[in-house]
Amino acid sequence: MKEIWESISVERNSSKPIYQQVYNQIKLLILDRRLSANSQLPAIRKMAGALDINPATVVKAYESLEEEEYIYKKVGSGSFVAPIQEDNFYYRSDKEEDSLEMLGYGQIEIDEDINFASATPSSSLFPVEDFKEAINKVLDRDKGEAFTYQKSQGYYPLRESIQEYFNKNGMSIPVNEIQIVSGAQQAIDLLVKIFLDYGDAVLIEEPTYPGAISAFKSRAAEIDTLPTMEDGVDLDLLEEKLAKKNYRLLFTMTSFQNPTGICWSEAKKKRLIELAEQYNLIIIEDDCLSELSYNGKSYLPLKAYDNSGQVIYIKSFSKIFMPGLRLAFLTLPDKYRSKLLAAKHATDISTAGLTQRAMDYYFREGLWDKHLKKIKKLFQERYQLMLNEIRKKLIPPVELVYEPNGGIYFWLKLPDGISAEEFYLAAREYKVALLPGDIFKLDNKPENSGESSYFRLSFAAVSDSEIKTGISRLKEIFENINDNRDKGYIPLV
Amino acid sequence: MKEIWESISVERNSSKPIYQQVYNQIKLLILDRRLSANSQLPAIRKMAGALDINPATVVKAYESLEEEEYIYKKVGSGSFVAPIQEDNFYYRSDKEEDSLEMLGYGQIEIDEDINFASATPSSSLFPVEDFKEAINKVLDRDKGEAFTYQKSQGYYPLRESIQEYFNKNGMSIPVNEIQIVSGAQQAIDLLVKIFLDYGDAVLIEEPTYPGAISAFKSRAAEIDTLPTMEDGVDLDLLEEKLAKKNYRLLFTMTSFQNPTGICWSEAKKKRLIELAEQYNLIIIEDDCLSELSYNGKSYLPLKAYDNSGQVIYIKSFSKIFMPGLRLAFLTLPDKYRSKLLAAKHATDISTAGLTQRAMDYYFREGLWDKHLKKIKKLFQERYQLMLNEIRKKLIPPVELVYEPNGGIYFWLKLPDGISAEEFYLAAREYKVALLPGDIFKLDNKPENSGESSYFRLSFAAVSDSEIKTGISRLKEIFENINDNRDKGYIPLV
Repeated sequence: MKEIWESISVERNSSKPIYQQVYNQIKLLILDRRLSANSQLPAIRKMAGALDINPATVVKAYESLEEEEYIYKKVGSGSFVAPIQEDNFYYRSDKEEDSLEMLGYGQIEIDEDINFASATPSSSLFPVEDFKEAINKVLDRDKGEAFTYQKSQGYYPLRESIQEYFNKNGMSIPVNEIQIVSGAQQAIDLLVKIFLDYGDAVLIEEPTYPGAISAFKSRAAEIDTLPTMEDGVDLDLLEEKLAKKNYRLLFTMTSFQNPTGICWSEAKKKRLIELAEQYNLIIIEDDCLSELSYNGKSYLPLKAYDNSGQVIYIKSFSKIFMPGLRLAFLTLPDKYRSKLLAAKHATDISTAGLTQRAMDYYFREGLWDKHLKKIKKLFQERYQLMLNEIRKKLIPPVELVYEPNGGIYFWLKLPDGISAEEFYLAAREYKVALLPGDIFKLDNKPENSGESSYFRLSFAAVSDSEIKTGISRLKEIFENINDNRDKGYIPLV
Repeated sequence: MKEIWESISVERNSSKPIYQQVYNQIKLLILDRRLSANSQLPAIRKMAGALDINPATVVKAYESLEEEEYIYKKVGSGSFVAPIQEDNFYYRSDKEEDSLEMLGYGQIEIDEDINFASATPSSSLFPVEDFKEAINKVLDRDKGEAFTYQKSQGYYPLRESIQEYFNKNGMSIPVNEIQIVSGAQQAIDLLVKIFLDYGDAVLIEEPTYPGAISAFKSRAAEIDTLPTMEDGVDLDLLEEKLAKKNYRLLFTMTSFQNPTGICWSEAKKKRLIELAEQYNLIIIEDDCLSELSYNGKSYLPLKAYDNSGQVIYIKSFSKIFMPGLRLAFLTLPDKYRSKLLAAKHATDISTAGLTQRAMDYYFREGLWDKHLKKIKKLFQERYQLMLNEIRKKLIPPVELVYEPNGGIYFWLKLPDGISAEEFYLAAREYKVALLPGDIFKLDNKPENSGESSYFRLSFAAVSDSEIKTGISRLKEIFENINDNRDKGYIPLV
């Protein structure tokens, strides 16, 4: 067996410290999945001996990897490779920290690494000055009150602001049915708590958002899948399933779905609600992107068609605003409210007060509308550019599965003979980050040979020039496919 | 049966709007438990007819009650009384909002309502200006980065700051074992997720913090109790229980426990750890107050004695800093780390970035030390005053169960013949808020007749003059006990 350090080389004359060289190379081995999750790293002394370096240097490299959560330690038994998290699943250059900081100052653009993996805008797009204003105004106005516990349901004025926002988007929701939560992931977690008993059956679209799958798995749910189609899932198939088994809930994204970018048709949305009523199926609708329509059509959430209270609607702004705020909104039929409040109270009591108050100010002063307008225009331009580039440079051999006309994702099909994982690894060699399709599947495993393979490109965090460069680099992968295989850039997985 | 409107009166000439009069009186009926949880309120038209007022006025009153979570609606079946939450469980005057705001400006002191129920400092004690400085410095320094996702384990520099803080408090914890969470309640929720399977058995001190009980119940845990004693629980009793049954974990507060104020002795802490090792019992230690020792002794957390990784330590600053920040810290032996990270990710991905960065700045600039020094001096003075007042005015007939010498709670025993609930209601009539002992018990029910009854007084949110007035009012209750019974101020429960 080849030992891991045989693929690590140390340049003693480099300006880069040796511990960092070791750190970088191990990180790449992990991200490349050449080191699999939970496999053991060599002991410090063994590694140091093999590379002929100081054990303290290895310690430092391991510590850095641990800080970044690429590896973990077990007392008395050494260091192990951590399972890859989605947010680690893209290429981090050595310069990342510097570059992001400089980007923040508008000083430079990264042209070395292209990040088609991130689904959140680059931080240079965050409206920091406006939000800072909101925070300071709120602190001057509310003083210490801004740091007291809020009600578990949320700061009332913010719930009013959200009601108005929903209204503008075609949904009439009573303030009393609006619950403020610490991000969409918490919304899913709370709903799982109040609706799922151990082993209950749930339905998901496939492919779908992996965080939802994790939450359902945490309750040992039995998960069944419905293949995503251009206009929503196959409802005849759904009805067949519902007739055979008692499913507690269905998780869906009806607008610009992650990862496919598809929108449900109005007809399918209406029929889904009918089915939900008929079979008493609870529907969780996760909406991050419905605002980002680029063809003039507006896509009403499923919730807008729901008269019987079957739909629980989660609205998150993380993908079009600032993910680190940890703020999202949930509508829930009245009958479930006291259960939800108890769950929220037992989970984290309430969401941070200052954040809620600042967000309320931000809405009321029209700063949100201003931000949305700006980001929508920008994303629409990026979308068009990205679509043109993909058409010009990648099709064929790649196939664009759906033309989303909105959102931030493109879902693409690889030619036969290349797996998503191979392509992901090759792109990494070309310094392009993207997400292989298999991480959006229930079993989280590479496609079986013979099945088609997919990948997701997001344009949330890339500039125009990065889009052009990035798509050109992907094109090169196909042009040099044999060459790449020879070089080992496209390893056999 | 007496109808609810018979105890409601409307003054048409009052300057107070009628809907508010109705709102207030129903709220009091709920807080007094004269209306029990989940009982139905009269229909709008019925209530309006009985009081001879406009139905719209009743609607408005009900809506206000609903906003405040005192009642909830069920579609098609009307309005119902919500279960009382701990944070609703104190007297709210009509003027509360105004008064708190004015307090924030240092303009007035509330002298009408005395709040011995709140365990968090009044917001006038929050270091708002210093924290505002921290926020602004961080925003100027980090720009948009402050609003990106943080790592699930937390912002690394803050974990370093916490490590140093722990060090100063006698605990040497590796940075890698420190996890940042959104408040102590979330810490308990996460631990429940990773350690408890449905129906596992856990042990708690009794009386104890009700939020922990809720979290264990959410996992359908089988909960068993150990009576709190002056120096910790009876460890022989614990050993007996451990020998008989497999308990997964024990929840404890070893310093200035909520609600009794007791501290575990060093000998008991050491023996508890030995027992935990012997029976592989996980101990969750919740520490909110260990800093607040007033007799010069320092009380090391259990964690400081733990060499084998049996103790999981939760450190919250909500009780001595600002509860609405939603920030706490957790130490966890390495072997559980990857499980905890997965649980945190599936729960809310990560804790808000700006809060973490501002808190880190706050620690590094010495602002935390400054705040702690100030609040400790203040609380120590209050403690002494409160103790003197209790001795002078309440003992006898009341008995001070323990002399805590620290923290923010006094745990007091009522004379025979008065239940905690009766006393709570009588204090309400005297405009004093306190917490009856039964809410800290597992079954959350009033004591059986014959058992002793207790109540908790907290001095976190009361000024010196409020302490004097409040204790005098409690004294009056006993002086006029028969008179109070005649007036119905002390109803038979």
